[in-house]
Amino acid sequence: MTEEAGTLSRARTVVQQCLHARLQVKPVEGQSEAEWVEIQRGMVIFICFFKGAEEDIIPKMVNSLLNVKLCETDSGKYMSVLELPGSVLIVPQATLGGKAKGRSMQYHGNIGKDDGLRLYNQFVLQCEKGMAASSKCTEAGIVVKYGTYGNRQVLSLDTNGP
Amino acid sequence: MTEEAGTLSRARTVVQQCLHARLQVKPVEGQSEAEWVEIQRGMVIFICFFKGAEEDIIPKMVNSLLNVKLCETDSGKYMSVLELPGSVLIVPQATLGGKAKGRSMQYHGNIGKDDGLRLYNQFVLQCEKGMAASSKCTEAGIVVKYGTYGNRQVLSLDTNGP
Repeated sequence: MTEEAGTLSRARTVVQQCLHARLQVKPVEGQSEAEWVEIQRGMVIFICFFKGAEEDIIPKMVNSLLNVKLCETDSGKYMSVLELPGSVLIVPQATLGGKAKGRSMQYHGNIGKDDGLRLYNQFVLQCEKGMAASSKCTEAGIVVKYGTYGNRQVLSLDTNGP
Repeated sequence: MTEEAGTLSRARTVVQQCLHARLQVKPVEGQSEAEWVEIQRGMVIFICFFKGAEEDIIPKMVNSLLNVKLCETDSGKYMSVLELPGSVLIVPQATLGGKAKGRSMQYHGNIGKDDGLRLYNQFVLQCEKGMAASSKCTEAGIVVKYGTYGNRQVLSLDTNGP
């Protein structure tokens, strides 16, 4: 697991390697069952944008996240998710922006909902593009999955290490 | 999930609510099977100490973590893990101290192994004491479990939200 505060702290991501991860994208409603997305080996990216974040920070964030050598292979070598190749699950996680104020959590630094959604969609899109641009990933059937912005993030995760 | 950089950034924690979490504390070795610890509802605390961290920062960290109202109840009210009451799983996670340098991760800011182990043991001990001091927790059979310092942290996690 790795934490990265973006340029001038306009975003925060936490990255976790996984063997399998499953995220609810639609809760149970009346007769209809919950819907989930899942990935096998790869990484889970939890993301939160702060006030003042703009689209121009996204290309650099996506580029680092997809290219940083975080994933340990069986041989003990570290590779990026693009090299592995592994899948990506993106989880919008507003609570990452929380600050403890006494015993309560406050989220005054978080970006507004509309701007947050716009940036989140851009972030997902650019991750998808970045992965699709790698023939290694497309040939291996690598996927980018993502959660629903604003939902309660119900997650199930299996890791084999940091 | 909530991220908290400690006083003057001498430690970093990431906190995740969980319904169930299971951490490997001993890997498979020859004929002997892997050993795991697990908790039911409560929270997982990932922790990493930085250079310059001393024992004096731990009481405040433990106090905030056990008392901050992070856990959502069925009624939608937020409670601390002590109030819930919920169990605690502590995961030593050195990779939280990483910084991306180009495409590689560097851990120059992390505390040395011996000091890290000493602080980690103190942190676990004080969490145990904090939970044991609450009669609500002891009556409910609440547990504090923790990972082995320096191990590969193999984790399985189910959440019901942030």
